[in-house]
Amino acid sequence: MAGSAAATGALFPALTESCRADWQAYVGHAFVRALADGSLPEACFRHYLAQDYRFLLHYSRAWSLAVVKSDHLDDLRQSAALVDLLLNHEIALHVEVCAGWGLDEAALAATPEAPANRLYTRYVLDRGLSGDLLDLLVALAPCGLGYAEIGRRLLADPGTRLEGNPYRAWIELYGGKEFQDGAAAMADQLDRVAGRRGLSAPFERSPRWPELAESFATAVRLEVGFWDMGLAPEG
Amino acid sequence: MAGSAAATGALFPALTESCRADWQAYVGHAFVRALADGSLPEACFRHYLAQDYRFLLHYSRAWSLAVVKSDHLDDLRQSAALVDLLLNHEIALHVEVCAGWGLDEAALAATPEAPANRLYTRYVLDRGLSGDLLDLLVALAPCGLGYAEIGRRLLADPGTRLEGNPYRAWIELYGGKEFQDGAAAMADQLDRVAGRRGLSAPFERSPRWPELAESFATAVRLEVGFWDMGLAPEG
Amino acid sequence: MAGSAAATGALFPALTESCRADWQAYVGHAFVRALADGSLPEACFRHYLAQDYRFLLHYSRAWSLAVVKSDHLDDLRQSAALVDLLLNHEIALHVEVCAGWGLDEAALAATPEAPANRLYTRYVLDRGLSGDLLDLLVALAPCGLGYAEIGRRLLADPGTRLEGNPYRAWIELYGGKEFQDGAAAMADQLDRVAGRRGLSAPFERSPRWPELAESFATAVRLEVGFWDMGLAPEG
Amino acid sequence: MAGSAAATGALFPALTESCRADWQAYVGHAFVRALADGSLPEACFRHYLAQDYRFLLHYSRAWSLAVVKSDHLDDLRQSAALVDLLLNHEIALHVEVCAGWGLDEAALAATPEAPANRLYTRYVLDRGLSGDLLDLLVALAPCGLGYAEIGRRLLADPGTRLEGNPYRAWIELYGGKEFQDGAAAMADQLDRVAGRRGLSAPFERSPRWPELAESFATAVRLEVGFWDMGLAPEG
Repeated sequence: MAGSAAATGALFPALTESCRADWQAYVGHAFVRALADGSLPEACFRHYLAQDYRFLLHYSRAWSLAVVKSDHLDDLRQSAALVDLLLNHEIALHVEVCAGWGLDEAALAATPEAPANRLYTRYVLDRGLSGDLLDLLVALAPCGLGYAEIGRRLLADPGTRLEGNPYRAWIELYGGKEFQDGAAAMADQLDRVAGRRGLSAPFERSPRWPELAESFATAVRLEVGFWDMGLAPEG
Repeated sequence: MAGSAAATGALFPALTESCRADWQAYVGHAFVRALADGSLPEACFRHYLAQDYRFLLHYSRAWSLAVVKSDHLDDLRQSAALVDLLLNHEIALHVEVCAGWGLDEAALAATPEAPANRLYTRYVLDRGLSGDLLDLLVALAPCGLGYAEIGRRLLADPGTRLEGNPYRAWIELYGGKEFQDGAAAMADQLDRVAGRRGLSAPFERSPRWPELAESFATAVRLEVGFWDMGLAPEG
Repeated sequence: MAGSAAATGALFPALTESCRADWQAYVGHAFVRALADGSLPEACFRHYLAQDYRFLLHYSRAWSLAVVKSDHLDDLRQSAALVDLLLNHEIALHVEVCAGWGLDEAALAATPEAPANRLYTRYVLDRGLSGDLLDLLVALAPCGLGYAEIGRRLLADPGTRLEGNPYRAWIELYGGKEFQDGAAAMADQLDRVAGRRGLSAPFERSPRWPELAESFATAVRLEVGFWDMGLAPEG
Repeated sequence: MAGSAAATGALFPALTESCRADWQAYVGHAFVRALADGSLPEACFRHYLAQDYRFLLHYSRAWSLAVVKSDHLDDLRQSAALVDLLLNHEIALHVEVCAGWGLDEAALAATPEAPANRLYTRYVLDRGLSGDLLDLLVALAPCGLGYAEIGRRLLADPGTRLEGNPYRAWIELYGGKEFQDGAAAMADQLDRVAGRRGLSAPFERSPRWPELAESFATAVRLEVGFWDMGLAPEG
C-alpha cells in the first residue's frame, strides 16, 4: 500500500486480508490499470459513468438505511452527512463530469441499470435489512474504502500517467485528501460500530466472522463485476 | 418458579434477572392475580381480549420480520411455523373465545388500538428494523416466555382457583403443555441465535449487553402497561 | 390561518380538514397558548426540550427511511438534505438552547424516552416499513407542517407576547422564514409523491384515503399526547 | 394459454401483456422445452435444483416481508400460510427430490448462490423495502404465477412427453391442482391488494403503472436469467 498508507483502522485490513485474491482482483483490475495509463477506451468510461450514476442513487439509499439503523449520535451524524454529500454534491459533480464526456442527465436517467450494478446495491441493502448496522457497514466498506485505496495507489505509483491522461480528474478525485479523509472516517466508524456490536480482535474468533468475511468478499467480487461490466460496454 | 420449572435456556434467565423488579411487576401483576382467583371484572377481560386481538396481528408481523432477518434454515422454519400458528390458528381460537364473551369479529376489528398496545408492538418492530435478529428476538421474548411463566406459575400455585373460575381456559391454555413446549423452543432459539451473533455467557461482559437488557426491560414494562390497560377499560 | 397563509399544497389541507377537531386540539393546545403568553412553567419547557431531543433522533431516522424509500432524485435529495439539517444543525442548535435552560448534553442523553414520545416515532417508522413513501410522508407531516402552522399563527396573533417572553426564540424559530420555507417544500413533496403514487383530488374517493386519513389523525393525536406530556413533567 | 386457462384475475394478465416478449421468453424458454421433452441434460437440472434451494430460502423471506407489510387479516393469513408451506413443506420436498438426483442437503447448503439467483431475490426484497405491499406482490408474481402457467401449458400440450420423462414429477407438480389453486389464490390477492392500494382497471392510466410494469418485466427477465443459468451449469 506504499508509503502513503492511510489510517484504515483494524477491522478493514482484517477483512481485506481474509479475501486477498478477490481484493487484488478488485483494486488491481484491468479497468483500473487502463485508467492509470490513460488507455481505457472512452466508450468503456462512458458506460461506467452512466452505470455509476445509477449506482450512486442506490448506494445513497443503503447509507440512509445505515442512518435508520444507527442508535448513537455520532453514527447518525456521520452517515447523514455522507448521504447528503452523495446526493446533493457528488451527484451534481458526477452529472457535470458526465456532461464533459457527452452524457447529459436525460441520457443518464434513461440508461437501464445493468444486472451487475443492480445486484451489488440490492445485495448491500439486503445485508442491512437482514442484519444489524455492522453487517451493513461491512457490505458498504469495499466501495468507499476500495476506491480510496485505488486512488492512493495510483497517485503513489510512478507508473501512473497524469500528464495528458483523460482520466486524471478521476484519479485525483479518489486519491485526493478529501476522499482519503472521508475513507479514514469510514474505517474509524467500522471499528467503532464493531466494538459496540461485540466484535473485537482477534476478529476470526467471533462466531460472526465467517458471515461478515463472506459478505465483505461478496461485495468485493461485486466490485470486480462492476469493473468487468465497464470493460464490456455492450455486455 | 416452583418445581414445574421449564427448560428456559441461558439467556432468558439472565435477561429476567437483569430487570427483576420489572419482571415481577409483570408476571405477578394484579391483573394476573385477579385471573387466578377469578375476581377480574368481566369488562376488564373483554377489554383485554379486544386489545389482545389487535396485538396478535402486529405481534405476528414482528415474528414475520424475524423470518425476513433469519439466515439459517432452522430459524426460518421455526419462526415461519409460529407466524402461521398465530395467524391461522391462534387468531381463530381467539375470535372463538371472544365470541364466548360476547365480542364478535366486527366488534374486535372496530376496537381502536389503545396507545399502550400500539406502543408495544411498534417498539418491537423497530427493534427488528434497527437491529439484528437477536435484538428482535430479545424484544419479542417477554411476551411468549412471560405468558408461559405466568401460566406455569398459576397452575403450580395451590392458591389458584380453577373450579368455577371464568378464566380457567386462559390459565390452562398458557400453562398447558403445548404452550410450554413452544416457549421452551423459543428460549432455545434465543440461545442459538445469541451464540451465532457472538453473545455468550457471561452475557454481562458483552458490549451489547446494556442495550439488550434495556430493550428486554422496556418490553417487560410494556407488558406491565398492557395489564394496566386491561384493568382500566375506560382508560 | 390569517393573512400570512403559506403555500401548503392540496393534500395537506385535505388531511387537516379530515380530522379538524384533533388538528385544533394540536395547534391550539394549552402548551402552545402558554408558550404564546410566556406563562408556561419552566419545568414543563425543560421536560419538553429533553424529550424533543430524543424525538429528533428517531424523527431523523424516519426521514432517512424516506430516503431509502425514494425512487426519484428530487425526493432523495430533499429528504437527505432534511436529515442532514436535522442531525448536523438542528440537534446542535437544540443542544445549545437546552444548555441555556440548564440542561447539558449528558442530562439530555440520560433522560428516559417517555412513552408518548416513543410511541409517536415508532408508529411513524412502522408506517414506513409497512407502507410506501406516501404512507410514511403522511405520518411525518403533522410534525413539520404543524409546527410551521403553530409558529405562523403565533407570530400573526396580536395576543402573542414577544417582549420579555422567555419562549420568544421558540416562536420565532418556527414562525420564521427558514422554517416556513422548509414546511412549504415539505407540502410540495407531499403533493408530488401523492401524484406519483396515484392519489389525486378528490382524495376522499381513493381507496387509500381512509387509511391515510386515519394515519394522519393518529399522528396528530400523538402530537397532542406530546404536548400533554410536556404539561406533566412528572408524568 | 390453451383451453385450460386458469382464473388469473385482472391485474396479472395486464402485467404479462405489458411485457409480452419477455413473458414468452420466460414461459417458453429452452430450459422449459427441454423439461417437456425430457432432453434436458441431468447436470443442468441438478444445477437448477441446487440454485432453486437457495432461491426458496430468500423467496420465503420476501413473502415474509409481505406479511410484515400486510394490514388486512386476509393478507396476513394467506401470506403466512404460504411462507409456512414453502419453508416447512416445499423445502423438505425439494430436499427429497434433490436426494433422488444425488444432491444431499450438505451439497445444497454448500452450493454458492449464483449471481443471477442472488440478483433476483434481492431485487424483489428491495421492492418490498422501498415500496408498498402491491409493489412487492407485483415483483413476486412472475415466479409463482409463471410456474403455474408453465405447468399448465406443459400438461395441456400434446407435444409434452410424460412417459419415461425424468422430469415428469416436476411437470406434474407445477401443472397439478394444488399448485394451480395456490396460483389462483395469489392472482386473487394481487387484484384485492391492487384495489385497496388504489389501482384499478384500466391500469395503464394509473401514475403507478409504468413503475409496476417495469418492475414486473424486470422480475420476468430475472426468471429468464435463472433459466439461462440452469442451461450453463459451469457458468
